[in-house]
Amino acid sequence: MGKARETGAAALTVHIDEVLLRRYLDELYAVGAEPGGGAYRPLYSDAWAAACKLVEGWMKDAGLTVRRDAVGNIWGRVAGNGKAVVTGSHIDTVRHGGRLDGALGITAGLTALRALVQARGKPKRPLELLVVCEEEGSRFATNFWGSRAIIGAIGREETDSVKDAEGVTLARAMRDRGLDPSKIPSAARDDLSAFVELHIEQGSMLETERVPLAVVTAIAGAVHLDVVVTGRPDHAGTTPMDLRRDALAGAAAMIQAVQSIAAALGRPAVATVGRVRVEPDQINVIPGRVTFTVDLRHADVAGRRALEERIRSLCGTIASERELGIEIRTLHERPPVPMDGAVRQVLERAATEAGVTPAALVSGAGHDAQVLAARCQVGMLFVPSIGGRSHCPEEATDPKHLALGTQVLARALELLAY
Amino acid sequence: MGKARETGAAALTVHIDEVLLRRYLDELYAVGAEPGGGAYRPLYSDAWAAACKLVEGWMKDAGLTVRRDAVGNIWGRVAGNGKAVVTGSHIDTVRHGGRLDGALGITAGLTALRALVQARGKPKRPLELLVVCEEEGSRFATNFWGSRAIIGAIGREETDSVKDAEGVTLARAMRDRGLDPSKIPSAARDDLSAFVELHIEQGSMLETERVPLAVVTAIAGAVHLDVVVTGRPDHAGTTPMDLRRDALAGAAAMIQAVQSIAAALGRPAVATVGRVRVEPDQINVIPGRVTFTVDLRHADVAGRRALEERIRSLCGTIASERELGIEIRTLHERPPVPMDGAVRQVLERAATEAGVTPAALVSGAGHDAQVLAARCQVGMLFVPSIGGRSHCPEEATDPKHLALGTQVLARALELLAY
Repeated sequence: MGKARETGAAALTVHIDEVLLRRYLDELYAVGAEPGGGAYRPLYSDAWAAACKLVEGWMKDAGLTVRRDAVGNIWGRVAGNGKAVVTGSHIDTVRHGGRLDGALGITAGLTALRALVQARGKPKRPLELLVVCEEEGSRFATNFWGSRAIIGAIGREETDSVKDAEGVTLARAMRDRGLDPSKIPSAARDDLSAFVELHIEQGSMLETERVPLAVVTAIAGAVHLDVVVTGRPDHAGTTPMDLRRDALAGAAAMIQAVQSIAAALGRPAVATVGRVRVEPDQINVIPGRVTFTVDLRHADVAGRRALEERIRSLCGTIASERELGIEIRTLHERPPVPMDGAVRQVLERAATEAGVTPAALVSGAGHDAQVLAARCQVGMLFVPSIGGRSHCPEEATDPKHLALGTQVLARALELLAY
Repeated sequence: MGKARETGAAALTVHIDEVLLRRYLDELYAVGAEPGGGAYRPLYSDAWAAACKLVEGWMKDAGLTVRRDAVGNIWGRVAGNGKAVVTGSHIDTVRHGGRLDGALGITAGLTALRALVQARGKPKRPLELLVVCEEEGSRFATNFWGSRAIIGAIGREETDSVKDAEGVTLARAMRDRGLDPSKIPSAARDDLSAFVELHIEQGSMLETERVPLAVVTAIAGAVHLDVVVTGRPDHAGTTPMDLRRDALAGAAAMIQAVQSIAAALGRPAVATVGRVRVEPDQINVIPGRVTFTVDLRHADVAGRRALEERIRSLCGTIASERELGIEIRTLHERPPVPMDGAVRQVLERAATEAGVTPAALVSGAGHDAQVLAARCQVGMLFVPSIGGRSHCPEEATDPKHLALGTQVLARALELLAY
């Protein structure tokens, strides 16, 4: 990671209204507020609809030409010629979500667009604010719903087959919001030039390195594995230690191995065991079967493969040493997506002009940019997350970092669109 | 463990009817048979009531004087003077229970009593067959219900406070079977001399050592611990390995430690982690909290304490090394119960007369004898379990070992009662 200098800022062409940005963030965070803290705005819910209405109002106030597409993405446009330069983020949240994830990209994008139009007038290229309807997958077991619609990658059967926890289909939830599932293909766009998003880091690397800003180099690829370990469920009191085939003892060794392999490979390799199920799950029975998941990520395909191969191999060895059965299934595989080189250069230049040498960071989390990369140049800026916290009410960023990120975003949009 | 010799059997005073024993076992196993294999006869269920009726019929056929006590234990008596010599076992089963656990002690006991009375007539001391109503704790979260009633150790509030999974109280379940909860104290007995039970080993030590019979020296003490490990739930993609406080990585190291400590202490120390709960249990979130149970057992108090202390200490060290929180709570503590020396001698003599040098074994599993030890001399015989399997439909014992166990039981009862 590069070292940053926070020197006196260079002369800037646009003025960022920090008070407006804070008001936008506060008002949006109040929509879907939960009693225990945090906000929840799942796709097509009442809170989601209220948030869309609120943001739409702001966009109109700012003089943008506003429209909703077939899945409920909101587009606010400043006219120009040729393919559009776009900024924005998603409006949905996880349960107990924080004030910034998604919300920052929308509000900072709008603040930046207002400032640019005020300072520079009509852009050469069309400049658009995109409010993505869904990215988190917190209601339906599908994420990137909004950006997949934009690149025309929604499956024909998805609206009927995907249901929420209450059994409501995506099609039904769309119709309840006045959206027609048969129109989804009309949401696709082939007239986009670039997509740039400001987001919080959701980790603590920037804070640890005391760097106020990062230009994202790639969004890490992820593989989700499901590992089933089988032993023999015996009586906990009558089976001596040396005669056991304990599935959990084996799984514990594998969980340890998963951590060690990722730690040994070093950043940006990460591997996480997040779910564990033990059977029969009785206090006095030796576990006969343990199922656990592995989430592993890396910035490049070779690194991710190396990580996965070592994990598969070591888990296999542990199982055979302990006479346990093992089955490893790939649940999900997502290749790493590099950010566009030209857009990265623009972001670095904009940061440098703001007096900051940005860090170069791989995003461990997924973002709409990885989907939109199929249709246009993409780039992302990260500002630090205090304590690395995200997806929780404690999610926060120093106001001066929010202002800096917005400033750099505005300058980058200026460089791309004017 | 002592080595056994299976030499030509000495002259025997009673003849064991192996065909009758097999018929008893088959008929009892058919009561509460489950579609997927195995039988389930939870306390006070229809299957339980049918099994009680079946066994009561056999006892009457055998000429015993039969009565039920206030909790539903069945007593079948051959008259004599002074305190009674008792054999038997429990009639309830775990879910998917096998053909022998409990059932063997009842059917072999009845077979032995029939043979004794036929061969030797009226005993000096009263000789009784005890069918214990409940031992497994598979319906209500209370075990040793039957034997605790016999020693007068049922709590006043237990019938109203203890409920099954459907919310039915013990009191309600008793009344549905025509039993009056207020009469429970009348089940207590102070006129018992000795209790001897034949049971399957439920482990594989006898099979491994090729010994056909064991005299139990003690029933191991057990401690159940509940361990809560707390870390920090972070994003699996954005948190580098070296900045994590992963509760599951810590718990996995502890689970490994629990196994290693028990293995290093050697037999009869055993320690088992049987239940694990991970929170938030999401594929892409680092676990922030893990709860697991430890079941640890040893034949003597000092051994059990050493095991527990080492486990507590090492888990504490692992937590502090990884900056994790840890809380260890004792859920349940049961001291080891030694078998009566005089009864053990009788059992060893009976075995030797049958041409077998029995092994001396600590029972890792709990049995009614450990409760009844508060009121009378107790002793137990174990026959081998094929493959060590128990509490499952595969539970089985070589028929010649069943006959041997019954033969030795009969001779021991003869030595104690005639």
